[in-house]
Amino acid sequence: MPDPTGPAAPPEDPRLPLTGLRVVELGHYIAAPFATRLLADLGAEVIKVEPPEGDPHRDWGARVNGQAVWFSIHGRNKLSVTLDLKSEEGQRRVRALCARADALVENFRPGYLERIGLGPEVLRAENPRLVIARVSGYGQDGPYRDKPAFGAIGEAMGGLRHLTANPGQTDLPPPRCGVSISDDLAGMYAALALVSACWGRDRNAEGPMGGKGTTIDLDLVSSVFSLMEGMLPEYGLLGRIRQPMGAALPSAAPTNTYPCADGKWLAVAGNSDLIYRRLMTRIGRPDLAEDPRMAGNSGRCAHAAELDEAIAAWTRTLPAKEAQDALEAVQVPCSRLYDMRDCVEDPHFQARDMMLAVPDPLVGTDVPHPAAPFRFEGVPPRDMVRWPGPAIGQHNDHVFGTLLGETLKEETT
Amino acid sequence: MPDPTGPAAPPEDPRLPLTGLRVVELGHYIAAPFATRLLADLGAEVIKVEPPEGDPHRDWGARVNGQAVWFSIHGRNKLSVTLDLKSEEGQRRVRALCARADALVENFRPGYLERIGLGPEVLRAENPRLVIARVSGYGQDGPYRDKPAFGAIGEAMGGLRHLTANPGQTDLPPPRCGVSISDDLAGMYAALALVSACWGRDRNAEGPMGGKGTTIDLDLVSSVFSLMEGMLPEYGLLGRIRQPMGAALPSAAPTNTYPCADGKWLAVAGNSDLIYRRLMTRIGRPDLAEDPRMAGNSGRCAHAAELDEAIAAWTRTLPAKEAQDALEAVQVPCSRLYDMRDCVEDPHFQARDMMLAVPDPLVGTDVPHPAAPFRFEGVPPRDMVRWPGPAIGQHNDHVFGTLLGETLKEETT
Repeated sequence: MPDPTGPAAPPEDPRLPLTGLRVVELGHYIAAPFATRLLADLGAEVIKVEPPEGDPHRDWGARVNGQAVWFSIHGRNKLSVTLDLKSEEGQRRVRALCARADALVENFRPGYLERIGLGPEVLRAENPRLVIARVSGYGQDGPYRDKPAFGAIGEAMGGLRHLTANPGQTDLPPPRCGVSISDDLAGMYAALALVSACWGRDRNAEGPMGGKGTTIDLDLVSSVFSLMEGMLPEYGLLGRIRQPMGAALPSAAPTNTYPCADGKWLAVAGNSDLIYRRLMTRIGRPDLAEDPRMAGNSGRCAHAAELDEAIAAWTRTLPAKEAQDALEAVQVPCSRLYDMRDCVEDPHFQARDMMLAVPDPLVGTDVPHPAAPFRFEGVPPRDMVRWPGPAIGQHNDHVFGTLLGETLKEETT
Repeated sequence: MPDPTGPAAPPEDPRLPLTGLRVVELGHYIAAPFATRLLADLGAEVIKVEPPEGDPHRDWGARVNGQAVWFSIHGRNKLSVTLDLKSEEGQRRVRALCARADALVENFRPGYLERIGLGPEVLRAENPRLVIARVSGYGQDGPYRDKPAFGAIGEAMGGLRHLTANPGQTDLPPPRCGVSISDDLAGMYAALALVSACWGRDRNAEGPMGGKGTTIDLDLVSSVFSLMEGMLPEYGLLGRIRQPMGAALPSAAPTNTYPCADGKWLAVAGNSDLIYRRLMTRIGRPDLAEDPRMAGNSGRCAHAAELDEAIAAWTRTLPAKEAQDALEAVQVPCSRLYDMRDCVEDPHFQARDMMLAVPDPLVGTDVPHPAAPFRFEGVPPRDMVRWPGPAIGQHNDHVFGTLLGETLKEETT
């Protein structure tokens, strides 16, 4: 790992697939910065443009040494420069950066970049190759385009929050997913669409896309809506509205999530004839294993409540880990619901290097990072985290001086 | 849209970014086929290899005209060929396809391709350019590699299911996300990593990746784990284990989800000083708007239950749509939790062409499809759905005859 405090350009890693791809980020909070973090993990040179006070995301979550530790992950592998987008100098520098870049990712409100003179037409007039990915709550057009986007709208409007509930428990609201899922999905799609546009631009030089950039419109609502499986045609053709299913599946039994002695939960998929018999025998209910009412899945679905009760009566007597070990020993697929301690202590997570200790000079200690979710042959996961989230403006000298070739004034150093 | 029943190759669309990228899919169920569906939406030529009886996913969910309608979406924009992977002829054809392809996506159990003589080394011996993306439950190595992967493990082990619950409601298990989220995430990452590897291969011809393919290892558990925000360092450095938050946020109030008169739910984000005052005034509680106990966010968090009660007392008197309209009129960010009917009836969804009517000869009628989640300048969303999920083996003649140049025998026609 290079010294992350130095002003020099961090070295490229030629083993990473996006080495040589330069991406400018005009992002804040989650969606656009998550897109560029994935690109940076893949080897792209990401230049994160921040206001002089930094991306407000830097203040989110728990702190160590005055630094929010999430940003150590969220900003990793990126260069940070500071600019005032409302100043002429700031705008000139954004144009200069985009003139030398493959792509731009932004998540301002629709229309903002145009208002400050940095719209796609302006930027592509100087660099026709520039790919621009725009991430927003509702998209770049349509009647809701200017509505304020708040974190939960993608989940709510895209159809996901309707599904995360226990059916019939109408006194309790459907819980959130627990993470910023709609931002994450939009960021993932933005990264995919951006790299695809760069591939098409660079490979198909003869076609209409050839050699030219394009503008991509990504929104949180569509990103969530794209995961609604067959629900749209099931409603459109059959009038069926998918309803929340809680932890069970209405079409297979027994498959549910059961309480354990230590207050944890165990998800069990016992819904094939053979697995069902092994499960019921193991929990001491051979009578149910052989019960003719339970001979097929439809019979078991009709008596799902009775089966769930029998299974829960057994799981309640054991800690979740022991119950899982006992069922896995007889080849019943199951998993307890991992909290972060379970993840950290799990031998598979450890063997796969899914948690990496990354020295972070801002935090003042090694920070545990999740490995990148994709692994490439011959590239150890720890080599994909080259440095942690940078200090605000840490790379001003390198980017403005070396890359843009400016004679540096005091304010940028 | 071309005639999807014809044996000829569907025409390419040069406006789409991945036009010219050929991808072989040895996929079944969700994760790998979702990866290739995204690539196909982006213009790639995806050749889906199925057993003679078809991908078992074709049987999932509600049917019209004997066809499961989800597959109309899940298989769209792909070519279907049938092969018996256990036969010599089937294996020879997979090798011949991969010899002419940019990439392969597969989601068999780890080791299966090697056992049938189609491992990465064999395939890349014939085509060193081949990029191979392998999707599995736990990854290609590690102690759990051979455990059976079932749909819910990614959510459970990756840490997501622990978070989707109402806190303190330990009599009800944490609900599922409601969709195959871990498969979807792994598929999205597979698509991103694959296109990135192709870009690196084609662009950086000088580097170690130059001109050569690579093998990518994607697993459901890591894909979910990658979304756990700052939870890993918060546990590792501070010992804090993130707990489920239900529909509320512990750090901001009032922000929650409230019951309405029609049994639907309204998510409201009323947690800034100005928005809070507008919200409480609109619901007829100016006393709370001006209450000095509620003057800042920390005061409101301390009295969140009292505020939630006051807001719910108002939402319960109105249908969700009316409550939303009333709050939006005073600039309070909110959204009801959309079910599929809400999506279909929404003017923004309609204006953005988020639901497309796609003629499907197998289903015998137009099937409503969600548009691709990414939009490219100058490409209307409906042009990105070129044809619906194909019949089993619909493109055998084209692929084996025209592409592989075989003299076709009866069994493939």
